[in-house]
Amino acid sequence: MSTSSPPDPRVPQAGPRSASQAPATPIPATGTARDRGAPQAPLAGGTHGPDALRPLLGLVLESLREGAADRGGPFPPGGPEAIAAQIRQAVEPVLPDHGIGAGNALHRLVRAVAYGAADPADPLCAAHLHTPPLALAVAADLAASVLNQSLDSWDQAPAASEVERSVTRALAAEVYPHAPQPDALVTTGGTESNQLALLLARERHGAIQVICGSGSHHSVQRAAWLLGLPAPVTVPAADGALDPVALDDALTELPGPRLVVATAGATDTGRIDPLPEIAAICERHGVELHVDAAYGGPLLFSERHRPLLAGLERADSVTLDLHKLGWQPIAAGLFAVRDHARLSPLAITADYLNPDDDTEAGLPDLLGRSLRTTRRPDVLKIAVTLRSLGRDGMAALVDRTMDSAARFAQLIEADERLELWQRPTLSTVLFRPRGAGDAQTAEIRRTLLMEGRAVLGRARIDGRLWLKATLLNPYASSADLHRLIDLVIDVVIELVEGSTHR
Amino acid sequence: MSTSSPPDPRVPQAGPRSASQAPATPIPATGTARDRGAPQAPLAGGTHGPDALRPLLGLVLESLREGAADRGGPFPPGGPEAIAAQIRQAVEPVLPDHGIGAGNALHRLVRAVAYGAADPADPLCAAHLHTPPLALAVAADLAASVLNQSLDSWDQAPAASEVERSVTRALAAEVYPHAPQPDALVTTGGTESNQLALLLARERHGAIQVICGSGSHHSVQRAAWLLGLPAPVTVPAADGALDPVALDDALTELPGPRLVVATAGATDTGRIDPLPEIAAICERHGVELHVDAAYGGPLLFSERHRPLLAGLERADSVTLDLHKLGWQPIAAGLFAVRDHARLSPLAITADYLNPDDDTEAGLPDLLGRSLRTTRRPDVLKIAVTLRSLGRDGMAALVDRTMDSAARFAQLIEADERLELWQRPTLSTVLFRPRGAGDAQTAEIRRTLLMEGRAVLGRARIDGRLWLKATLLNPYASSADLHRLIDLVIDVVIELVEGSTHR
Repeated sequence: MSTSSPPDPRVPQAGPRSASQAPATPIPATGTARDRGAPQAPLAGGTHGPDALRPLLGLVLESLREGAADRGGPFPPGGPEAIAAQIRQAVEPVLPDHGIGAGNALHRLVRAVAYGAADPADPLCAAHLHTPPLALAVAADLAASVLNQSLDSWDQAPAASEVERSVTRALAAEVYPHAPQPDALVTTGGTESNQLALLLARERHGAIQVICGSGSHHSVQRAAWLLGLPAPVTVPAADGALDPVALDDALTELPGPRLVVATAGATDTGRIDPLPEIAAICERHGVELHVDAAYGGPLLFSERHRPLLAGLERADSVTLDLHKLGWQPIAAGLFAVRDHARLSPLAITADYLNPDDDTEAGLPDLLGRSLRTTRRPDVLKIAVTLRSLGRDGMAALVDRTMDSAARFAQLIEADERLELWQRPTLSTVLFRPRGAGDAQTAEIRRTLLMEGRAVLGRARIDGRLWLKATLLNPYASSADLHRLIDLVIDVVIELVEGSTHR
Repeated sequence: MSTSSPPDPRVPQAGPRSASQAPATPIPATGTARDRGAPQAPLAGGTHGPDALRPLLGLVLESLREGAADRGGPFPPGGPEAIAAQIRQAVEPVLPDHGIGAGNALHRLVRAVAYGAADPADPLCAAHLHTPPLALAVAADLAASVLNQSLDSWDQAPAASEVERSVTRALAAEVYPHAPQPDALVTTGGTESNQLALLLARERHGAIQVICGSGSHHSVQRAAWLLGLPAPVTVPAADGALDPVALDDALTELPGPRLVVATAGATDTGRIDPLPEIAAICERHGVELHVDAAYGGPLLFSERHRPLLAGLERADSVTLDLHKLGWQPIAAGLFAVRDHARLSPLAITADYLNPDDDTEAGLPDLLGRSLRTTRRPDVLKIAVTLRSLGRDGMAALVDRTMDSAARFAQLIEADERLELWQRPTLSTVLFRPRGAGDAQTAEIRRTLLMEGRAVLGRARIDGRLWLKATLLNPYASSADLHRLIDLVIDVVIELVEGSTHR
């Protein structure tokens, strides 16, 4: 191996705003000094792994700090081509004949990717359901990487599988407090959870017709395509939320097996469909209901905001996603069911993973807990977060975030230069400069992005394009929210002046 | 929030072999002392994140070390119920009314999960394609968690998406050195990659009939089920590898659109299907070929072993998996295609992620690069590993692992108490005690597992059950391999004595 070869002179440091090319701390070799004679690419596990990891983690933290400082804002300036060119310098050649060593590779790549990151920890980065993760969740996730347990069989994850069992049951009970045997699976996110909902409905009822609101996530359409189901029927949304009357009509008109998919927290608007009315309609028609609560689900933790999810427990299955309002690093998806028997179509036997005689001998059979096979314990960071913060700590983060959004909407309402779409339900605020057309609105967002000043999203509602602030940072201050508004106004003025001078 | 509340006295430390209940280093509060006044659950990102993370990461490393030391072997002893009881003590209540603080939660949970881990870094843990990850890859993965970039849109991952572009192209070119535009997607593993292969064939040809060898991975069957395709037709394997004559017959008999799935590294045996013959047969029948090289793919890095994959570049698509022979923490799957146009059915538009005017303005459209939406940059650790070690470093790890397996097979051949199935192709060695029946073979494996002495797999080949050692630890010594054999022999003797005394 060539991990001790000298740094590749063709690969300059990333980060154009950096004063110095040298890292602030010395780059350790792949191993520590007392590892001399040990492998040059040591393993992370075992009793020696932590010693091998310590200097590398220190280097990663230093590289992250440098990259963030070089960036100096929510987003790297310069646009796709400039950023791509910088990254190619750090990453290519991807597979050199001889390695450049762990210290060099880690420092250059981590620093370059940190510099070129959209940083959700910066309150001016507020485009998407793109959360700033908690330090404690990230620390727990390191342990998941080190231990590398795989949740497809008990003999690859004896303890981690039990953590998953406890946490999924507890979270399922949050959704279904009155059900005797609720259960949940860990997924890669809302997309996989929605896919599971459609798949299980298909296995129960055959080629179901999915009916959803026009504000439902695109993954519902995609899951139907993937699973060979008819394209979903979309019923109109009123003010961003599914219209119960239109749903009732659709169910009356459409025969055969059906699945209704409602949304608790639309990606575009944060709107929550009227769950009690929808549940009642589904019950009347004898149709199953899935609720995509990828965004809104964690309101369950907050006494103040939980009432917004009334009716959720009447759904047959629910999508949750703790890498949104749960402040987890990706991935932390969940798929909850009222009755764990609903998951039985996922059962599968592979003699090398869950042979009958093992199951008879009491070894847990995990293979039916996912559509994946090899699977990392994403549940560990969730467990550490919930235990660390408790219900009141989670509620405090939810409440702070909701308050930020309400405050931001008030600032916009009070600003005559801006138009607010509607007061937010969750933490998504839609607004636009008064008098701006769609093209100008799109241009404002793109200008802020290309110059690295702010990251805002966009949403087309009722035929008009709006700027979208998805506020997920619980520590955003009033000053941050004012600054976000000022940046938008600045660009409006610049664009007007630019067009005048042209 | 209640992160500073005292430790929960109901939750004892995990790890029954531990001499001391106290951690060797003091448990930090959620933040450091100079964070007083800052949020009690600080974020991982930004310029302050590294300071918040440093003490938490130190605690994680200490907890990992303690857990591994307490375990003192490849696997925790005691069986499922004992381990589950220990874990429940560390994880329940999952959502306490008040949190126990980050320091307490991290220490207890990480230590308990480390104690209760199947540790692939221990050479006696050799059941599955369950790799011991490299420290440098784990360190890079920490950066992915901290930055939390999401690869569904450019404005959530401006630099990370470019790293993915470079790495996937480079790895695709390793598979397809002569193709003008090879490409690859990053997946959660072989299961998702195989699913993509079937999905893309379905989109090109309609309801295809999949034809695979009897040694193919169960995910091929599962993908057909998921996608609404007919159950795959299985053609016989000879010595664990697909029989080309049987394949030719099957293709002659079966009309309509078909996809052949061959395997380069069967999970049970490590066998590689005869790819050149299979490719020739597929070409003659005008049928597309997918090769599942989740296990064997990284032989491409090794000059010595690459010839085993001759013919791979004739496949239309290939599954790779660097969380097996690539020593990455889960997940590090890849799906490579000869021509990037093959990926076009995955294209999808969601106005909030890739609107037309953004694409026209030059913003990269990432949404068609996965079936997932939110998606972590698993590619970062791969990039750091390949750059750190280079081609020769990766080859050295592959070669060492292959040498271990060859040596282990020699030891078994030389031991008259044991029977070797066949010499290994990759790093999987099947063996059993001479004269042992299937039930006894299963019992030997389970006894080693329940007592935490060794983790071996099992495989049923030609109607007989074998012990399976899947050797993925490049640093396994001859002494380790001898010890593994001794442990099996010890259990054979114990079981014989036990049955005699009964």
